[in-house]
Amino acid sequence: MAYDVYSAECPARAVLDHVGDKWALLVLNRLTQGATRFNALRREISGLSQKVLSQVLKRLERDGLITRQVFATVPVTVEYALTGLGECLTANVGPLLRWAETNMDQIRAAQAEYDRRLAQAA
Amino acid sequence: MAYDVYSAECPARAVLDHVGDKWALLVLNRLTQGATRFNALRREISGLSQKVLSQVLKRLERDGLITRQVFATVPVTVEYALTGLGECLTANVGPLLRWAETNMDQIRAAQAEYDRRLAQAA
Repeated sequence: MAYDVYSAECPARAVLDHVGDKWALLVLNRLTQGATRFNALRREISGLSQKVLSQVLKRLERDGLITRQVFATVPVTVEYALTGLGECLTANVGPLLRWAETNMDQIRAAQAEYDRRLAQAA
Repeated sequence: MAYDVYSAECPARAVLDHVGDKWALLVLNRLTQGATRFNALRREISGLSQKVLSQVLKRLERDGLITRQVFATVPVTVEYALTGLGECLTANVGPLLRWAETNMDQIRAAQAEYDRRLAQAA
């Protein structure tokens, strides 16, 4: 079946919602470093709450982008890892994150200029 | 200044929110074909309301990713185009959209399997 993201009925739209999410991008990119435990993800992605991380991981698992593995340790350990499909996606996510970091000064300058013009027009 | 998207205070987080937005991705990718009028964007991105398109364009303009040019025609014509910064971003957006289209069958299969397992566990 051929999918077209410009069509309102395209199921890929929902996936764009999931992977376009800022937290999902950060989680996926972190998992390129290898399987990671829930608490490590939470610690390393600052500002991400336990509840939201839980939701993000469930969505990514449902989309087949990550796996969830439970180890019978005490207490129980849960590890998340990229699937083949998820790995193929992250090849596109890394450059997007680096783009944001690299161009942030330019973006902030543009925002200040836009706000200045808006204030003048008011 | 060095930015790190894994830090909660990083201003690049807000930009990820803007460009991670599904509609923004679709608008940016469409503009790689050249300057485009508001109405053409609205027509070509099915399911996108006038109000949301307006908001998306304002955010992208404020971030310095697109320009807005007004022509004194009757009625007034408004055209949007990528800036150099925006063009550099879209190089990363196109592959992401194509990834979603290309892998949709596999994602849908994963979703069905996840829902089946969840139903069994209930």
